[in-house]
Amino acid sequence: MSHEIREGLKTETGWELIETKYQRDQAINSGSLFMMGNGYLGYRGTFAEDTKADYTGCFVTDTWDNADGKWEEVCNVPNALSTRLFVDGEEITVKTGGLDGFKRKLNLENGVNTIEYTKTLLNGKKVSLREEKFASLANIHHVLMRYSFSVSEEADIKLITGIDGDVWDLNGRHLNTLEKGLQDSSLFFSSETREKGQKIDIVETVSFAGDNAPDMRIEEEKDRIFRHYTFKISKDQPFIMEKGMIIYHSNDVEAPFNNALNDAKKIDFDGEKQLSVKEWKEKWNRYDVLIEGNILDQVALRFNTYQSVIATPTHDTLPVGARGLSCQAYQGAAFWDQEIFNLPMYLYTDPHVCRNILNYRYKTLDGARGKARRLGYEGAYYAWISGKTGKELCPDFFFKDVITGRPIRNHFNDWQIHISPDIAYTIWLYYRVSADWAFIVKHGAEIIVEIARFLSSHAVYKPRKDRYEFVKVQGPDEYHENVDNNAFTNYQASFTMETATTILKKMKKDNPAEYKVMKEKIELEDWEITLFEDMKSKIYTPEPDKAGIIEQFDGYSKLERVIPVEKIKERLIKEDEYYGWPNGIAVFTQAIKQADVIQLLNMHPSHFDKEIIRKNYDYYEPRTLHFSSLSPSAYSLTAARIGYTEEAHKNFVKSVNIDLKNTNEPISGGTFIGGIHTAAAGAAWQMATMGFMGLGIDENGIPEINPALPEVWKSVAFFLNFRGNEMRISSDNKTVWITVYHKVSDKLRLKVCGARYELIEGINEISI
Amino acid sequence: MSHEIREGLKTETGWELIETKYQRDQAINSGSLFMMGNGYLGYRGTFAEDTKADYTGCFVTDTWDNADGKWEEVCNVPNALSTRLFVDGEEITVKTGGLDGFKRKLNLENGVNTIEYTKTLLNGKKVSLREEKFASLANIHHVLMRYSFSVSEEADIKLITGIDGDVWDLNGRHLNTLEKGLQDSSLFFSSETREKGQKIDIVETVSFAGDNAPDMRIEEEKDRIFRHYTFKISKDQPFIMEKGMIIYHSNDVEAPFNNALNDAKKIDFDGEKQLSVKEWKEKWNRYDVLIEGNILDQVALRFNTYQSVIATPTHDTLPVGARGLSCQAYQGAAFWDQEIFNLPMYLYTDPHVCRNILNYRYKTLDGARGKARRLGYEGAYYAWISGKTGKELCPDFFFKDVITGRPIRNHFNDWQIHISPDIAYTIWLYYRVSADWAFIVKHGAEIIVEIARFLSSHAVYKPRKDRYEFVKVQGPDEYHENVDNNAFTNYQASFTMETATTILKKMKKDNPAEYKVMKEKIELEDWEITLFEDMKSKIYTPEPDKAGIIEQFDGYSKLERVIPVEKIKERLIKEDEYYGWPNGIAVFTQAIKQADVIQLLNMHPSHFDKEIIRKNYDYYEPRTLHFSSLSPSAYSLTAARIGYTEEAHKNFVKSVNIDLKNTNEPISGGTFIGGIHTAAAGAAWQMATMGFMGLGIDENGIPEINPALPEVWKSVAFFLNFRGNEMRISSDNKTVWITVYHKVSDKLRLKVCGARYELIEGINEISI
Repeated sequence: MSHEIREGLKTETGWELIETKYQRDQAINSGSLFMMGNGYLGYRGTFAEDTKADYTGCFVTDTWDNADGKWEEVCNVPNALSTRLFVDGEEITVKTGGLDGFKRKLNLENGVNTIEYTKTLLNGKKVSLREEKFASLANIHHVLMRYSFSVSEEADIKLITGIDGDVWDLNGRHLNTLEKGLQDSSLFFSSETREKGQKIDIVETVSFAGDNAPDMRIEEEKDRIFRHYTFKISKDQPFIMEKGMIIYHSNDVEAPFNNALNDAKKIDFDGEKQLSVKEWKEKWNRYDVLIEGNILDQVALRFNTYQSVIATPTHDTLPVGARGLSCQAYQGAAFWDQEIFNLPMYLYTDPHVCRNILNYRYKTLDGARGKARRLGYEGAYYAWISGKTGKELCPDFFFKDVITGRPIRNHFNDWQIHISPDIAYTIWLYYRVSADWAFIVKHGAEIIVEIARFLSSHAVYKPRKDRYEFVKVQGPDEYHENVDNNAFTNYQASFTMETATTILKKMKKDNPAEYKVMKEKIELEDWEITLFEDMKSKIYTPEPDKAGIIEQFDGYSKLERVIPVEKIKERLIKEDEYYGWPNGIAVFTQAIKQADVIQLLNMHPSHFDKEIIRKNYDYYEPRTLHFSSLSPSAYSLTAARIGYTEEAHKNFVKSVNIDLKNTNEPISGGTFIGGIHTAAAGAAWQMATMGFMGLGIDENGIPEINPALPEVWKSVAFFLNFRGNEMRISSDNKTVWITVYHKVSDKLRLKVCGARYELIEGINEISI
Repeated sequence: MSHEIREGLKTETGWELIETKYQRDQAINSGSLFMMGNGYLGYRGTFAEDTKADYTGCFVTDTWDNADGKWEEVCNVPNALSTRLFVDGEEITVKTGGLDGFKRKLNLENGVNTIEYTKTLLNGKKVSLREEKFASLANIHHVLMRYSFSVSEEADIKLITGIDGDVWDLNGRHLNTLEKGLQDSSLFFSSETREKGQKIDIVETVSFAGDNAPDMRIEEEKDRIFRHYTFKISKDQPFIMEKGMIIYHSNDVEAPFNNALNDAKKIDFDGEKQLSVKEWKEKWNRYDVLIEGNILDQVALRFNTYQSVIATPTHDTLPVGARGLSCQAYQGAAFWDQEIFNLPMYLYTDPHVCRNILNYRYKTLDGARGKARRLGYEGAYYAWISGKTGKELCPDFFFKDVITGRPIRNHFNDWQIHISPDIAYTIWLYYRVSADWAFIVKHGAEIIVEIARFLSSHAVYKPRKDRYEFVKVQGPDEYHENVDNNAFTNYQASFTMETATTILKKMKKDNPAEYKVMKEKIELEDWEITLFEDMKSKIYTPEPDKAGIIEQFDGYSKLERVIPVEKIKERLIKEDEYYGWPNGIAVFTQAIKQADVIQLLNMHPSHFDKEIIRKNYDYYEPRTLHFSSLSPSAYSLTAARIGYTEEAHKNFVKSVNIDLKNTNEPISGGTFIGGIHTAAAGAAWQMATMGFMGLGIDENGIPEINPALPEVWKSVAFFLNFRGNEMRISSDNKTVWITVYHKVSDKLRLKVCGARYELIEGINEISI
C-alpha cells in the first residue's frame, strides 16, 4: 500500500521515500531529499548521468575555502560516480522521457538510494536500468554505486564513466586541478583548494560482474577524466558495474592520495553495504520515534531524523551545517541551530554525540575570542556562521536589495549576539541531563565564563534605571535588526550570568585546583565575578505587560499590525526581495519572520506560567510569517505544552514537510538558501518527544514526560538514555510504558504528568 | 560699475542684488534671493502677476499647522499683492518675453525690492512697468507695493488686483477659506488653519495717485477675490497704484480681522517706507561687516546677513527657521542651526536678540521634556525640528527611496541627540560673552540641568571600560546614522555635564534660594548631581589617535575611502536619491555629508592644539562632500584658525554663494529642501569675524581677536557689543583699530593676537 506525501512522492512502509515521476525543475529539492551521507560527506541523490546543471554534489566537511575573496564554504568535490550510457548511440537518461516504471527510492532505514526505470529507445528496444548507491556509514570516505542495465535486444553499448571535476559552486571555484590519471587501475583526481591549499583526492574504482571487463580507453578533458567502454550486449543480458568513490583530504590524513589508493584495493559493494546497513540499524535504535496511526507523519519524522543524522559529524569535532552537507548554502557551517535544534536529540539518546559537538565549541573558543576582540568586546562571541576554526564566516553583506541590486549590510554576524548565550544554555542543559560535571570542569566552565565575559562587555548599564540592557541587537526574528532589549536575548543573557556564577561557585568549592587553573588560564579576575553577580539580577528581562504579553523588543508593540499577516506580501515590489533590514516590507510592522518570544517561552517553559505562555502564543502566532524553517517547530513545541495539541500537530506537519513538500523558497534577496533545512530536521525529534510526549527535565534533575498526543496519533515510542540508563518510553495517551533495559542508577526516577515514579528494570506501566 | 555674481546677477555698490535676465526655470531660487521679510513674515521676491506656479509665497511664523496628517509647517497666506495688467487685451508679464531693460533689484540696505522693464506689445506699443515692494520692519504685519506703468500710446487697460488665496503648499492645504469680500473699501480674506483652527486674516488696500480711482467691479472665484479695473490711459501718462497687504492671525491678537481692518485705514507707502528704511539702518549699524577689497565677497556677506536678519523673529519668542520664512521646507522651524549658526552674530552684536531666542528654548522646555518621555528618556530632549511648542515636528519618514518609492525611516528625530547639548553649549557661550548670570539663574540653569538629565538617561555605562558612551546616535554628518560614540556628540555631552555641574555649584553658593526653588520645581535629586559629576569625567571623548586623527565614530576609519570623494556620485542609480541611511551610496564609505569632527574642533578650538586641528582638517576635508549648507562655513572657520587662510577664503566663498549661485539641489530623496539656507546665512558673519578676524572669548572671559585676512581683502570692520561696551573693530591685517564709542566697564580689555590690551574710549590702535 502506498501513501502519497505529495504529488509524485510517496512512502509504502513509513521507512522510505519513493519518487514516481521525474521532474527536472525540482532538481534542487529532489537532489536534497534523496541524498546520502554520513556526517563526513553528503552525496546528493541525483542520477549517475547528472552534471552540475542538475545540482550534483558531494559536499565534504572540513574543506572550508574562500575562493576569489567571496564566501568561505565547504567544497563540492569531483564526482567519481559520473556515468553516461549510450545504447545504439542513444543516451539513456531520465531527462529525455520515454520512461516506464520510474522509481527513485531512498531507504531511510539503511541509507540506500535506488533508481529504476525502463526506457524505450527510438529504435524500439527497451533498456532497463538500475542504480543503487549509498554513502557508507562504516567507512565515511566511501560512496558506492552498483550500476546495472539490460537491453531487450542485442545492442551497441557505449559506457562513459569516471570523475567529473566540473562541479557546482555557489561562491567561486574552490578547487584547482593538480593531477588526474589512472593508477593501479583506479582513476584519480587530485586537487587543491584555492585559498588554503588543502589537498583533496578522489579515487574511483570500477569492477564488473562476470569475468571479462570490456575494452577501455581513457579520455581526459579539462577537469574531467573518463573511462570509455564500447561493446556489444546480448538480449536481456544483465550488465553490472560497481563503482567506488573514495574521498580523502589533507585535513583527514597526511597523505590523502595514498589513503584513497589503498582503500581502492578493498572496495567491495556488498560487503560495505552490509556494514553500513548494520550501522544504520544501531542509529535507528537510538533515534527512531515510532508513531502509530499516521504513516505520513511517521515517514516525515524519519526523513527528518535521517537528514539530521547524516548532517552530524561524529568522526571528528566539527560543526553541524545549517544545510547539513546538502549544498553550500549557509557555507556548510553551524548556526545556533546546532545547539538549539539539533543537539537535544543526541542529548537524550546519544549524549557523547552531543558532547562531541559541544567540544567543537570548545575547540573554536579562540575563534570566538577573536571575533569578540575584533568587534571591540571581550570574552567569547561565537561566530554567527561557524566553520572549522570558529572564525566568523557570515559575510557582512548577505542579501542584496534585488530592486536596486545593491548589497545589503545585514547584521547577522555582529548584532545577533544570542548565539553565545544559546551555546551556554545548551551546555548547561547537557549538564543537567547528563550530570557530566567533568565536562563542565574541563570545557564547559571555560566556555560559559567566556560567554559571560562577552555579555558583560556588550551589556550597557543604564544608571538611572539601575539595570543592564542589550542594545543594537537582533533576536531570532531576523526581520527586525537593530533592536534594543530583545526579550529572548536578554533572558538568555540573564540565564548565562546565573549559570556562570553557579558554575564558578561550585567549581571553587568542588574543584578548587581546576578552578584556580582555569582562572589563571583565562585571567579571570575577582571583579569580573562580582560583575557577573551584579548582572545576574540586574539584566533587564521584560516581564509580561498588563495583557500578559512579553514585548519582543522595545517598541515592538507600537509597530503597525498587518491583518492577516500574510497580506504583507501585497507590498512586495519584487517577489524575491528580502523582507527585513534595512527597508524591507516587514521592518516597520509587527510581522515577524519566526518564533522569537515563543522561542523564549519554549526554552524556558518553567519560568512562565501556562496562562502567560498561552496569551503570548495567541498574540504572536497571528503575527508570525514562519518564513524561517526554525519557526513552526518552536510553535509546535510551545503549543504542545499548553494543551494546544492540534495546533501543535498542525505546526509539526508544517515543520516536518518543509523539505518534503518543498515549501521554502531556495532563493531570497538574491542569495541561494536551498538545500535541507537541518534545524527543522533536528527539531522533528524534539516535537515528537519534547512536544507531544512532554519530555524534559525538572528543576531537580528528574526527567519527566507529559504525553498529549494529537488525535491522529495512536501511540508514540522513543528511546531515552538518561545518565546511562537506557529505556524505551511509549504512550497511547492513556498509559505510559517505560521499558528499562539497561539500568545503571540505583534510584531511577521519572516524573509522569507531574507524579514521580521509581523505575524498575523491565517494564513499568503507568496509567495517566 | 557693475560686478557680476553669476550670469544675470550682479551688484553695483555691494549693497544690492540686480537681476538682469528673467529665467522662469530659476523661480524657486530667485523668489528666495529677492525676498523681503521682517522675522514675522517672508514675502518671496516674485512678480505681481505670479501665482503658485511661480512659487509665490508669504510665509508667516507662528502659524504651524498639520494638514491631512502630513507634516506640520508654517502657512503660506493668501497673496494680497496679486496684480495682473492687460494692455489692449495683451497681458503684461515677464513670462512672455519681449522685455527691454529688465531689472529686478533687491536693495539690501533698506529691504526694498524693485522690478522694472519695458515690454513691447504685439501691436508695437511699449509698456513701461515698475514694481516697488517691501516688507515693513516698522510694522511687521505690512507688505507694501507701489505698482506703476505707462504706455507709449493711448491704450485700453484692464487691471486685476486683489487677493489670491490659491497658495503653494508643500504638505497639504492648510487654510480653509472662511469669508472674503469688500469692507470699508478694503478687500479681506479670512481663513482658518485646518488642524488647529487658527484664524488668519488678510486685508488688502488699494489707492491710486491722482484724484480719481478708475471704475471697479469685484469678482470672486474659489479662493480668490479680485478688483477689476477697466479704463483708458493716455500716451505716456503714468499710472500709479499703491497696495497694502496686512496680515494678522489669532496667535498675534485676539481679533485679527479688526486689527487688519484698522491698519488698512492708515496704510501709507512712503511713510511706512521711511520708517522701515530707518529700522534697516539701525540693523546694519550692528550687523554689517565691511570688507574692503572684494565687492563680490562684500555683497555676498551682506546678502547672507540680510537673510539671517529677516529670518529672525524679534517680535515674539519664536524660532529661526532653517529656511527662514522663504518657503515651507524644513517646516519654518528651528534646528541646531539656530544656536550654532545664527545666534553667534546676535551674541556679539545684539545680545538681547540672542537671549530672546534662548528664551524660546526655555518656553519649549516642556515640549523637549515630552519628547524625552515619549522616547523613554528623562530631562529635555529638544526637537530636531522645533516649532512653536517644541514638540517634535520632524517626521519619522523624511526622505524616500526614490528607486523603490518606499519612504525612508530617517532617524534625525530620535538619534540626532546632539541638538540638546548644542543648546546647552550656546547658552553657556551666551553667559561667557554677556556675563548675564541672571539669565542663567532664571532660565539657563533649568534648561542645562534638564539637558544633563536627558544625557544621563541616554548614556550607557560600560562597566568593563568604566566609561559612559552614547550609542545608536547620529552626528552632524547625517549620512552615517546609527553610529556609536560620535566624537562631536560625546564631546558636547561631556561639555554639558561639566557646565551643568559648574552652574549647580555656583548657583548653590551664589543663589541658594533660586537653587532650592529650581531643585524643587524640577525635582532634581542629589544622586542625580552625583551622577552628573561622575559622567563629567567619564564620558568617553575620543582622543586623537597616533596619527593625530579623532575618529568620527567607532569604526569610521575602517570604512571604504573613495578618492576623490566626489567620485562617489558615479554609484548613484538615480540622481536625486538620498546618499545616506539606510542603503545610500555614502553609508559604507568615509564620504561624509558635512563637517563633523571639524565642527567639533571649530566649537572647542582651545581644547585641541593647532597641530591636531590641522591634521584633522587635512584628513577630513578630502572626505567631505559638503552636501550640507552647514559644511563650508565650518571648514572656513577652522581653516582660518589654523592659518589655512586662503583655504578658509575658498570655503567662505563657497558658503556665502550657496544661495546666490544656487549650488544646492532643491529636492533630495523626493523631499523639497529648497529655499534660503538660513544657517549658512548666519555663518557668513561668523566666518568674517570669528574666522578671519579671529573673534572669540578666552578662558578668562576676555574677548580676543586674531586677524588673518585673505589676500583679496584689504580690511575688515565690524561692530562688537561686549557686555554693553559698544565698539567698532577693524583691521587691515597689520594694524587693529578699536573705536570704543560706548564704554560701560571700568576695565575694558581685549586680547589681540594673544596680547591683552586695556581699551580706552575712542580710538585704540594696535599694530600686529
